[in-house]
Amino acid sequence: MKAARFYAAEDIRIDDIPEPELRPGTVMVDIAWNGICGSDLHEYLEGPIFIPAPGHPHPITREELPITMGHEFSGTISALGAGVTDLQIGQSVVVEPYIMRDDVSMEPGEEYQLAPDTNFVGLAGHGGGLSEKVVADRKWIHPVGDIPLDQAALIEPLAVSHHAFTRSGAKAGQVALIGGAGPIGLLTAAVLKAEGLTVIVSEISAARKEKATTTGVADHVFDPTEVNVAEEVRKLTDGKGADVAFECSSVNPVLDMLIDAVKPTGTIVNVSIWGRPATIDMVKIVTKEIALIGTMAYAHDHHAVIKLVQDGKIDLEPFITSRIALDDVVKEGFKRLVNNNETEVKILVHP
Amino acid sequence: MKAARFYAAEDIRIDDIPEPELRPGTVMVDIAWNGICGSDLHEYLEGPIFIPAPGHPHPITREELPITMGHEFSGTISALGAGVTDLQIGQSVVVEPYIMRDDVSMEPGEEYQLAPDTNFVGLAGHGGGLSEKVVADRKWIHPVGDIPLDQAALIEPLAVSHHAFTRSGAKAGQVALIGGAGPIGLLTAAVLKAEGLTVIVSEISAARKEKATTTGVADHVFDPTEVNVAEEVRKLTDGKGADVAFECSSVNPVLDMLIDAVKPTGTIVNVSIWGRPATIDMVKIVTKEIALIGTMAYAHDHHAVIKLVQDGKIDLEPFITSRIALDDVVKEGFKRLVNNNETEVKILVHP
Repeated sequence: MKAARFYAAEDIRIDDIPEPELRPGTVMVDIAWNGICGSDLHEYLEGPIFIPAPGHPHPITREELPITMGHEFSGTISALGAGVTDLQIGQSVVVEPYIMRDDVSMEPGEEYQLAPDTNFVGLAGHGGGLSEKVVADRKWIHPVGDIPLDQAALIEPLAVSHHAFTRSGAKAGQVALIGGAGPIGLLTAAVLKAEGLTVIVSEISAARKEKATTTGVADHVFDPTEVNVAEEVRKLTDGKGADVAFECSSVNPVLDMLIDAVKPTGTIVNVSIWGRPATIDMVKIVTKEIALIGTMAYAHDHHAVIKLVQDGKIDLEPFITSRIALDDVVKEGFKRLVNNNETEVKILVHP
Repeated sequence: MKAARFYAAEDIRIDDIPEPELRPGTVMVDIAWNGICGSDLHEYLEGPIFIPAPGHPHPITREELPITMGHEFSGTISALGAGVTDLQIGQSVVVEPYIMRDDVSMEPGEEYQLAPDTNFVGLAGHGGGLSEKVVADRKWIHPVGDIPLDQAALIEPLAVSHHAFTRSGAKAGQVALIGGAGPIGLLTAAVLKAEGLTVIVSEISAARKEKATTTGVADHVFDPTEVNVAEEVRKLTDGKGADVAFECSSVNPVLDMLIDAVKPTGTIVNVSIWGRPATIDMVKIVTKEIALIGTMAYAHDHHAVIKLVQDGKIDLEPFITSRIALDDVVKEGFKRLVNNNETEVKILVHP
């Protein structure tokens, strides 16, 4: 089958590789769509980062590059391994794309994503969504009902945003401020809006400001090159500040602004992956009793996210900005995101 | 009466000033002992910081320097203002030394210390513990029963540590790591030990390491110049890391070590006041889902702290390292702390 495999920075090739093998307890998924993630782009430009380098195979998969990429994907069940009796061939599904030790507990409340050696399908082995087929353990398969398969490819990044929301402790009726309206910022806005919060977005790109407005996920959009965003947030909140904020830019002045803009005892969730250390005014963290918390991927989020989409509370269609073929993934996918990443939200790839 | 007043950095004078006036609803306290705080030392070396500079009177007290210093103090009630019927002359008390707007709610759960314009007696007006008498509103007076008045002067910094504990969400049976065993680090260790946690202290000063050991507040003391403290913490916790950590040093490598040493989903409470921005590896905050939270002074902590001392769960005596007269506060107090701050924990001043 065809697969887009990472060899080195700026060296992703379309290879012909063997189909994955169905084993007892697993499910074979014929890939419909796979979204290109910011972390995929980091790998393309500067990798290998999460991808295991030569001589450093991942301890669970025992794989190293070349590695099939893609972890935001949807598809149709094409085969069921022995013992899998609660799913049907032909069902639309997404895969929670974890590589994890078999002994990790998935009981409610367990933050299984933080278990040692955890990594992702499409980054550290076990195939990937930028190919024709993936085989995964039953426990990672989530049926999506009648959600269109192109939109379903966005369930994975939406689960990232949902986990950030659950980490924040935010509640309906509160005011949330989002720093940066890239794909994760926009999807986080969508989750917060669906959960009943007032959503304020800070963004400098004209295309992204427009997307935050036209999708309806933001109640207010401010440009920090035009206004003092923290002041605007205080004006909207009787002088108090935002209840929660989400750092989705990995830009230090944005983080500084969020620290200024949250209320005393406010929470800032850092969702973005920073390429360098952040600088923080600890005096403000102390004197406002701010909580700055990290959020990593997702755990127990997929069911809630699928329901939000099925119930019509989140419309994923406006976030799909391009649909391309697997053969074009470098030219029309990675390179376009590098050169033109402000107008694109999510580029979907079809094998 | 005599009062130690701040005029400028390295210019604190013993002045003769009028006694404070008793008003309805207030209580006059004859000062017994006042501890010198790290923030007093910052004012002495680099102030005015919290102290209102000339031309910038505090919005509530309308006072500016010269300002009477001292906010960690105990004393005896010498007069009761009209309407104060639930206290007796002669009672031993401490003062929760807040300057606050009258309309701030002190209902349970209210973080009143974060209200706008809040400041401290002994820094922004309303007198101070480095004098003979203080008058304060009834609501800020806490009787201490038979706690000796010298020990009672440490109730205020102990309340800071108690608030850090409550902010952390730490529970009995958990493992806490403290970065830095200065006065606040030691008192935080004392609170955590009293609350049933296992306490690990990281410290480089020989005198402070010894104090953490001989007072019994630390179960384990590690020196980061001798061992990898995070590794030692993992050895003591089945490889997991500390449940909570307390930054009490305002030293960046200590904060880095705490980030390394806490477990996934662990909490780090920043107790110290930093003189410059902190640098943080945000990738570790994300991938371990760490919560970094600020803690500011105290709110609703004094009753719990007084009870811990009355019940014998915390012995404050070993933390008093010197007792001096008010006339000697510069030479034997501030200057000694500047030159010799490792062997001293708390210097108490008697007027």
